[in-house]
Amino acid sequence: MQISELSDRSGLTVQTIKFYIREELLPRGTAAGATRAEYGPGHLERLRLIRALREVGDLPIAAIRRILAAMENDGIGMHELFGTTQHAIGPHVAPPDDPHWRAAREDVDALVGELGWRVSARAPARDLLAQTFVGLRRLGFPITLADLRPYVRAAADVAEHEIGRVAHDAPRTRTVHSMLVSTVLYEQVLTALHRLAQEDASARRFDGN
Amino acid sequence: MQISELSDRSGLTVQTIKFYIREELLPRGTAAGATRAEYGPGHLERLRLIRALREVGDLPIAAIRRILAAMENDGIGMHELFGTTQHAIGPHVAPPDDPHWRAAREDVDALVGELGWRVSARAPARDLLAQTFVGLRRLGFPITLADLRPYVRAAADVAEHEIGRVAHDAPRTRTVHSMLVSTVLYEQVLTALHRLAQEDASARRFDGN
Repeated sequence: MQISELSDRSGLTVQTIKFYIREELLPRGTAAGATRAEYGPGHLERLRLIRALREVGDLPIAAIRRILAAMENDGIGMHELFGTTQHAIGPHVAPPDDPHWRAAREDVDALVGELGWRVSARAPARDLLAQTFVGLRRLGFPITLADLRPYVRAAADVAEHEIGRVAHDAPRTRTVHSMLVSTVLYEQVLTALHRLAQEDASARRFDGN
Repeated sequence: MQISELSDRSGLTVQTIKFYIREELLPRGTAAGATRAEYGPGHLERLRLIRALREVGDLPIAAIRRILAAMENDGIGMHELFGTTQHAIGPHVAPPDDPHWRAAREDVDALVGELGWRVSARAPARDLLAQTFVGLRRLGFPITLADLRPYVRAAADVAEHEIGRVAHDAPRTRTVHSMLVSTVLYEQVLTALHRLAQEDASARRFDGN
């Protein structure tokens, strides 16, 4: 197909597509004349992934480049690919140089250790969790493992299901796509369902039958 | 105590405290001379709640006023108080006038009905969930009840625990405080744990023992 059709089918402007080619996120098309190039289904699939990373993951070009490089390198296993994607998504909390923050981060590391979870020391989610611990303590809500238990169980059940549904032999583009979707969109699904479930639980507890 | 001590203990400036008094979020102190007023522990507690609603819930003054009014009105039951707090927190998605959006919102309403959850038709979380459905479909991920089942179960378990820990006879200020914390901060705890659990599940599935 020509670039105009690629634009129609990907929902991206010709200008944006040319920008991605210049940034080497998208391979050039095959030359088909002096000024024309032909694009295939691989280009379309790649553009859809880039678009998802931009719009859903809100990722900068540099982060997308890292993910695509890991995706194209067959020497990189699925777990590392997952880590690259998730770490690129962030959010990257800037840890303040503050004793409350350091204490919270130590608690997070202790919790992960106690649970026996295999999580990189540099995983952004460790800082994300530390940040919530700081907030809870500032409001006078101490955190105990007992308080966290239901959240740990819920998170583990959902994650098990999500990783279980990644096919071992799926094309890597599709895998990155579904990792992104699990991390970003299904996370929002969980948040929204959590709020709906709270309202229902409140109705049942406080509002009679 | 005088306003300077109230400022020290609440971590808010004297100027901010005076602003909250003018906005009628905080009652005036008791006159103790021509230019001095005395403040009690109730003032401090109220300021801590306002601060939490501002900083954690990121709420505008008008939303805080609604929550405080519901909190002070003993004729308003706990369930309504919870609803007022949660609806004020939002997020308020502006539903586009779009057939994809309307279809997603109908799916959300059908899901809530199927689950038998008692949730107000105006709950912002319905729109939040509809928004994720639109995003998933746009990326080519159809949504089925089977896909949602693990998320529904996780959300319901966590919500049950959260509502269960609200004491029936706790002071209403404390109750609003812990509702806010459950809705905003423990939601972030769940998100962070979800990401950590995903990395662990990925390590176990893809990265050998």
